[in-house]
Amino acid sequence: MAVKIIKTVREMHCAADRIRQAGLRIGLVPTMGYLHKGHLSLVRQALKVTDRIVVSIFVNPLQFGPTEDLAAYPRNLDRDLKLLDQHGVHLAYLPDQKEIYPGDFATSVRVAKLTERLCGASRPGHFEGVTTIVTKLFAAVKPHVAVFGQKDAQQTIVIQRMVRDLNLDVEIQMAPTVREADGLAMSSRNAYLSAEERREAPALYRALMVGQKMIGRGERRAQRVIEAMRDVIEPQRSAEIDYIEAVDAKNLTPVAELKDSILLAVAVRFGNARLIDNALVHIK
Amino acid sequence: MAVKIIKTVREMHCAADRIRQAGLRIGLVPTMGYLHKGHLSLVRQALKVTDRIVVSIFVNPLQFGPTEDLAAYPRNLDRDLKLLDQHGVHLAYLPDQKEIYPGDFATSVRVAKLTERLCGASRPGHFEGVTTIVTKLFAAVKPHVAVFGQKDAQQTIVIQRMVRDLNLDVEIQMAPTVREADGLAMSSRNAYLSAEERREAPALYRALMVGQKMIGRGERRAQRVIEAMRDVIEPQRSAEIDYIEAVDAKNLTPVAELKDSILLAVAVRFGNARLIDNALVHIK
Repeated sequence: MAVKIIKTVREMHCAADRIRQAGLRIGLVPTMGYLHKGHLSLVRQALKVTDRIVVSIFVNPLQFGPTEDLAAYPRNLDRDLKLLDQHGVHLAYLPDQKEIYPGDFATSVRVAKLTERLCGASRPGHFEGVTTIVTKLFAAVKPHVAVFGQKDAQQTIVIQRMVRDLNLDVEIQMAPTVREADGLAMSSRNAYLSAEERREAPALYRALMVGQKMIGRGERRAQRVIEAMRDVIEPQRSAEIDYIEAVDAKNLTPVAELKDSILLAVAVRFGNARLIDNALVHIK
Repeated sequence: MAVKIIKTVREMHCAADRIRQAGLRIGLVPTMGYLHKGHLSLVRQALKVTDRIVVSIFVNPLQFGPTEDLAAYPRNLDRDLKLLDQHGVHLAYLPDQKEIYPGDFATSVRVAKLTERLCGASRPGHFEGVTTIVTKLFAAVKPHVAVFGQKDAQQTIVIQRMVRDLNLDVEIQMAPTVREADGLAMSSRNAYLSAEERREAPALYRALMVGQKMIGRGERRAQRVIEAMRDVIEPQRSAEIDYIEAVDAKNLTPVAELKDSILLAVAVRFGNARLIDNALVHIK
């Protein structure tokens, strides 16, 4: 395999310095592994704008709540490495949990406000886990550009704010969500879905399309759009709605009257899988 | 003047990249200005181990409590720049408060445990302000080495932990405390002292020497050492003791029996000045 495996922070620092010293640009795609077409589209995006691609694979315990699916989270490292190799990734950064979180680990990076709503409301501590590990990955990999997926739009917006606030010299790019033929957003967690749940899950995408169309036709009342989206998801027998929201895309606060850039965002449980999806709508 | 002034994060990133691209090493000395011989000894230390020295001057509001001396903190930029120039500093990073803390600034870096005792107990929020600004300075300046003074030993120990925890590629060096002829540790805050307070303030150093000597002669009971140090400071009419402690130098927890590496640390108010000092004692 051409993809080089790096396991320690020290090695990663040295590799990053060598690449930068050669005048080349580093692109980072942070993942929790169990790669799918969504991740690979982030790799392709990184390959377009940088010279050496690092994909990190680390199932970060800090971003899972005590009742969440850390132990069950799907893993398949051999398959992941083959995919990275096939897609021209240069370095796979597979840090060791004991080095990442030693026993006396005591530091956290927190973004306030933006993390309080949407997924932050139902997953307390989740975004602090994300911003802490992403700070660590950026420090280890020293990327010029990091590419995140739009499916986790709140995550990307939180990281953009963190990068600005901490004066990190990293450009954050958000790549479009990759979908199955029926519209379901690609996610490692789709592996949890039963056959019935899998049939019903594309309702998230259909709801977002309904919301987007209503806005396109001139609807500006957030409540009306949210109700119409709810009418698409609620009839699914296995769906348990976590949230359906229309928020300002910059500060993630709910709006009554839709204007400027709006993020329509949904989170729905189907059995053991908590699925999220969203659409960005720009209103002129 | 040969020292180059940099005011924006963007300029600082570019300057740092140029230095690194040339294969040179960057040394950072972070300060709040009103420079004294202590700061200049940090500069000399940085000059020994790196090629290009950046001194940052920024009075960081985030590390001052609401009742503390932010407005009164002494400033003299012209004098500071002349001193930096005379001492061969290459870049003075003078970031703008509006760029460092924009209105919607929302990110914080926190180190738990180590920050709860000593100065952390009497200055809630102080160390979170320090770790947040130091993360920002490291991200802007991209130093290979950063030099801090031993007078702020707890700060240096907290930053060392933060650097390890966040996988930052920066070496933290701690330089010895520089003292006046009578033992008073150099500090910008000494400017607050009245003539009487200035006469009494060296009691901090004398107390540390008494503690160190007792340990040297075999005393291992922390309480005895602390009491002897208290007996030196308490008789000073203008002294109001904040703390006198003997803690493990690694995790900053109090110890009953002195062993390994011990930090003797004192904080005492003299009128408007809160002065700190410490001694590291290694027990075989």
